Amino acid sequence: MVKIGIVGGTGYTGVELLRLLAQHPQAEVVLITSRSDAGTRVEDMYPNLRGHYPDLLFSEPNVERMGQCDVVFFATPHGVAHSMAQALLDTGTRVIDLSADFRLRDADEWAEWYGQPHGAPELLSEAVYGLPELVDHQRIQQARLIAVPGCYPTSVQLGLAPLLEAGWIHTDGIIADCKSGVSGAGRTAKLGSLLCEAGESMKAYSVGCHRHHPEITQGLSDVAGQAVGLTFVPHLTPMIRGIHSTLYVRLTADNLKRNDVEIQQLYTARYDKMPCVDLMPWGACPETRSVRGSNLCRIALHRPQNSDLLVILSVIDNLVKGASGQAIQNMNLMFGFDESLGLTAPGLMP
Amino acid sequence: MVKIGIVGGTGYTGVELLRLLAQHPQAEVVLITSRSDAGTRVEDMYPNLRGHYPDLLFSEPNVERMGQCDVVFFATPHGVAHSMAQALLDTGTRVIDLSADFRLRDADEWAEWYGQPHGAPELLSEAVYGLPELVDHQRIQQARLIAVPGCYPTSVQLGLAPLLEAGWIHTDGIIADCKSGVSGAGRTAKLGSLLCEAGESMKAYSVGCHRHHPEITQGLSDVAGQAVGLTFVPHLTPMIRGIHSTLYVRLTADNLKRNDVEIQQLYTARYDKMPCVDLMPWGACPETRSVRGSNLCRIALHRPQNSDLLVILSVIDNLVKGASGQAIQNMNLMFGFDESLGLTAPGLMP
Amino acid sequence: MVKIGIVGGTGYTGVELLRLLAQHPQAEVVLITSRSDAGTRVEDMYPNLRGHYPDLLFSEPNVERMGQCDVVFFATPHGVAHSMAQALLDTGTRVIDLSADFRLRDADEWAEWYGQPHGAPELLSEAVYGLPELVDHQRIQQARLIAVPGCYPTSVQLGLAPLLEAGWIHTDGIIADCKSGVSGAGRTAKLGSLLCEAGESMKAYSVGCHRHHPEITQGLSDVAGQAVGLTFVPHLTPMIRGIHSTLYVRLTADNLKRNDVEIQQLYTARYDKMPCVDLMPWGACPETRSVRGSNLCRIALHRPQNSDLLVILSVIDNLVKGASGQAIQNMNLMFGFDESLGLTAPGLMP
Amino acid sequence: MVKIGIVGGTGYTGVELLRLLAQHPQAEVVLITSRSDAGTRVEDMYPNLRGHYPDLLFSEPNVERMGQCDVVFFATPHGVAHSMAQALLDTGTRVIDLSADFRLRDADEWAEWYGQPHGAPELLSEAVYGLPELVDHQRIQQARLIAVPGCYPTSVQLGLAPLLEAGWIHTDGIIADCKSGVSGAGRTAKLGSLLCEAGESMKAYSVGCHRHHPEITQGLSDVAGQAVGLTFVPHLTPMIRGIHSTLYVRLTADNLKRNDVEIQQLYTARYDKMPCVDLMPWGACPETRSVRGSNLCRIALHRPQNSDLLVILSVIDNLVKGASGQAIQNMNLMFGFDESLGLTAPGLMP
Repeated sequence: MVKIGIVGGTGYTGVELLRLLAQHPQAEVVLITSRSDAGTRVEDMYPNLRGHYPDLLFSEPNVERMGQCDVVFFATPHGVAHSMAQALLDTGTRVIDLSADFRLRDADEWAEWYGQPHGAPELLSEAVYGLPELVDHQRIQQARLIAVPGCYPTSVQLGLAPLLEAGWIHTDGIIADCKSGVSGAGRTAKLGSLLCEAGESMKAYSVGCHRHHPEITQGLSDVAGQAVGLTFVPHLTPMIRGIHSTLYVRLTADNLKRNDVEIQQLYTARYDKMPCVDLMPWGACPETRSVRGSNLCRIALHRPQNSDLLVILSVIDNLVKGASGQAIQNMNLMFGFDESLGLTAPGLMP
Repeated sequence: MVKIGIVGGTGYTGVELLRLLAQHPQAEVVLITSRSDAGTRVEDMYPNLRGHYPDLLFSEPNVERMGQCDVVFFATPHGVAHSMAQALLDTGTRVIDLSADFRLRDADEWAEWYGQPHGAPELLSEAVYGLPELVDHQRIQQARLIAVPGCYPTSVQLGLAPLLEAGWIHTDGIIADCKSGVSGAGRTAKLGSLLCEAGESMKAYSVGCHRHHPEITQGLSDVAGQAVGLTFVPHLTPMIRGIHSTLYVRLTADNLKRNDVEIQQLYTARYDKMPCVDLMPWGACPETRSVRGSNLCRIALHRPQNSDLLVILSVIDNLVKGASGQAIQNMNLMFGFDESLGLTAPGLMP
Repeated sequence: MVKIGIVGGTGYTGVELLRLLAQHPQAEVVLITSRSDAGTRVEDMYPNLRGHYPDLLFSEPNVERMGQCDVVFFATPHGVAHSMAQALLDTGTRVIDLSADFRLRDADEWAEWYGQPHGAPELLSEAVYGLPELVDHQRIQQARLIAVPGCYPTSVQLGLAPLLEAGWIHTDGIIADCKSGVSGAGRTAKLGSLLCEAGESMKAYSVGCHRHHPEITQGLSDVAGQAVGLTFVPHLTPMIRGIHSTLYVRLTADNLKRNDVEIQQLYTARYDKMPCVDLMPWGACPETRSVRGSNLCRIALHRPQNSDLLVILSVIDNLVKGASGQAIQNMNLMFGFDESLGLTAPGLMP
Repeated sequence: MVKIGIVGGTGYTGVELLRLLAQHPQAEVVLITSRSDAGTRVEDMYPNLRGHYPDLLFSEPNVERMGQCDVVFFATPHGVAHSMAQALLDTGTRVIDLSADFRLRDADEWAEWYGQPHGAPELLSEAVYGLPELVDHQRIQQARLIAVPGCYPTSVQLGLAPLLEAGWIHTDGIIADCKSGVSGAGRTAKLGSLLCEAGESMKAYSVGCHRHHPEITQGLSDVAGQAVGLTFVPHLTPMIRGIHSTLYVRLTADNLKRNDVEIQQLYTARYDKMPCVDLMPWGACPETRSVRGSNLCRIALHRPQNSDLLVILSVIDNLVKGASGQAIQNMNLMFGFDESLGLTAPGLMP
């Protein structure tokens, strides 16, 4: 059994870690911290977990106690992992960070987008970006520090990687029109996340300035082998969970002759052995609810007027494949388990 | 492995059986029927199940093939199990019926409420009402034919049974004000179930004439040992899953002196060993979402102005503890497994 | 044109006043205050109002300027009207208070339920409870200070008044099982009001201790001519607007013989000339959406098993007939207009 | 008063016409037809309208009676207006068709997209496309037959017209990523429109083959003065009303130097005198709820990375500016009223 600690367990990624780990055959959560709720029983805050963690209480973060875990998940606002990761790594405990702290390789770029200096630039070189479908598994297995990708970046990168790797599309002018459920805004009492503000309505937000922008371009540039140009427009959708990314790319002149079968085959081959990506038949329309609660990214491909423009649809549950499930997928690899151990429950539908 | 057949698998209780059985360690679904969709792959109709049933197709119902199963679930409109159960039992296959066909013991009462003659009255004497918390487990273990309770009846009976058994409350004047998500209306294209009709609105319906009325009074009368008088008002709520029953009962004169601790203790003792009922602390307010996707009934007790009136709050997921999960709970008992085998996943929250 | 001021206009009752007054032919909003948002243009905070109030800015509350209005609406948390009403009345300006400050006639009872001393007990004797269907219109016309009823109290009192006035029902053992949309919790960033917390779920709350309890019993006792005993259980429903009250009462022995026609006729006669109450046919089930955005209370009557128990269904839009619309209805009466002037728009459906 | 008839009044555009016309000072609905519901009182089908149309019953369509109206609205499935328009026009009654029957100028193109021959090609030359912001008002005033634009086409054309008219953008490679509420699918009992199917989920549909595609390209080509190339991806969003169009276009090389102020000014000037278009400040993010129930199209402009790519956000209520409200806007022009008469109510928010 892997001994697990969770730092900052009172948000949605925290409770989702607990929900998923309750079903994981090799996981034992021994520690969960929260400054604001220290002393509270986990089951009192999250009644869905009643009976699963009868003895678990939120406690003050304490590096010594955390150091007795095999691995610690950070489900914290940005900046927290910066301040605690090194001390924890020094105890020999491995760290899986669900926050944005180690996602960007460039400390200056991080500082620019997050409006504060990077707090642990010396760890950047060893942090591994934990998108298992695009990263060498050996790197994840050996990693001490994993940066779990953001929700939008996961859905966009998985949707575009095969075409960029193959070099079939233009690397500039990529458009990602993404729609997210409200849980992406976290379990904090913000006006804009109220049912009466976000319900029964749709809007774009942070057009051109969302913090996931540099993370997406970093990842896409990696697989493309060159800088990519991206327009990323996130939208808030009146639902709890789910991200739907609609991706628009253009075939290069050399590749205009590719037909549907070839393009579909490119994706089939790429994701063939990947248990957490489900490629649907050409022309299908994946629904976010089909992955609700599951760790899958479901993808489908379209070429509307048989022009040079391809449309890729990519859906995930932002709290699972977009956060806590992917974190556990990384843990599975780090500890030598099957990649999808404990993560195979079907989506909840309806 | 238990070999399982499902008749009428295209509705919500059908897909929910498949979702739950996909995670059950002792279950193998070998057959699923649908007249209208024979030949369709299960995964094509329910994309959330992609990868879990790669070889399963809907087929025409066929008693011979169904007879090769250990157990067959009927997830059908009423009347269907009437017409097929006997033939199936004759093959030695056991039947778990999720429809209303065998819930009422009195064929005439059934005929009156369902507007057609009872189609298999000769089976009524052996049908076992499958509410495991209130029925002798030995009867379920030995049953050939289980009538799975309705969703409202499950939440109301579990909420009231301890007080009625103890004889602490008046048996007439019981009020059940129940609120259901829209999935209770089934996966059929009805105007009233449209998002634009049922969304962002609340209404009562079938006041005094809902078909679950006689089922509830039958069950409550059983545990009370005498006829009960019930007012049952169901309401449609703009959500997908969940039933919230608010139950109003009055302590008898002899029991007015009972204090909160005694009443809570009555429930604690009654449900102590029952893995699928979760009694919350006195005065708590269970949320339906806390049981979303789980097989729990979560109950809490109130005595508002310390008068003779008690308020019991009882929540379930209508598709799980109110239908498919409870059906599997019965199967577990029938085949000698732990009652909650494969049914322990926490609710999906948020 | 009536010159109108609004104090505390940044909540949902504030924006709803602005929405309704924009369509009122005799209203001119000249002033709106907000300490936190002074200087902000109303249209910038509420884009639905763009074009309707091009020159209106939130300003610091200032009694002198407010005193130049004919009437000032308080759309504030409790306690604010206490502190400002007297000074405003001294200027000759009339006050319509949407908060709870003057709803209870007994200052001690108010202090007990609101956890602080009543701030203006000397005004209680002249405050008029502004439920126009139950209060003498002449009192409203002449009032300097109106206490607009709460949302739950409006729907419950209108649902029960005819039977209590007629003395046909028992005055104890009344049950009000009420369901509210989330906007009733106000436009404040509370965790429990998040879409991800309140969406797709149902729960009871404040069982036996909701602050509307004493307001409802005060009003019901008035119409009954004696103290009433009430159990009031409010529930949170996953929708934005709407209250659905399901009311359970028992006919007295003397009145058991009353038939449906007589009971319906009692309500018909009572509300015949009332433009803001719509009595539906016997046995109907009003939907909250049918009054979305409208100032109507829609009522229907049931007698489920022809027993002594009656079920009354009463729906309103909590922000309109339950708050801002009713406030304007009072204003109309105070200034000699038709009661429903500017309030006749049909509900928005779907 | 304009005497109005409505053909096919049982769908969402029908009830929305009734809701809006109930508030219109110059409109009198004298006739409403429905084959399936002839004899039913309008108020019984639409309880939100109770009290507004006490004497109006659905009747069988009858050209003679319809011919006594000044104008008849068709709120029917496609094909119906084809079969009845000529006879009606012959009586001197004017026709405003909310269906797709006369939107495309080319009968063959219509036949191709709608899968049946065009039923009234001889009327195409005189049908006027009723998008008042883009069409000469004199043509509308004199029209006998108006084709009211579709919902998606309204939001897309209004969002793009100024740039296309000015010739500042490339006319090929235009992308319209559109999100619609479920009411766009109509008031028909379709599986995909159920709350349990469309709720809490997001998906694309009809990628590259939606029937609004040719209507949009026809309109855009008109304003551009040349053929445009469009990729149109509609999405289903879990809300009742609202369309959010996110439009991606590229400045031509000659116009790359245009700055934000110039582009904003282009739109300001274009829509300056148009009461039903509201241009928001540069960089704003309009919410669909801000136009819920209102006849406005609200638009905002973005240039994310200061590249050649512009993002235009355009929101409408699909049942108002996208259907019934726009129909009345046309009626106002036809009968010499102010364009927005009866259409000025603010959006319902929250």
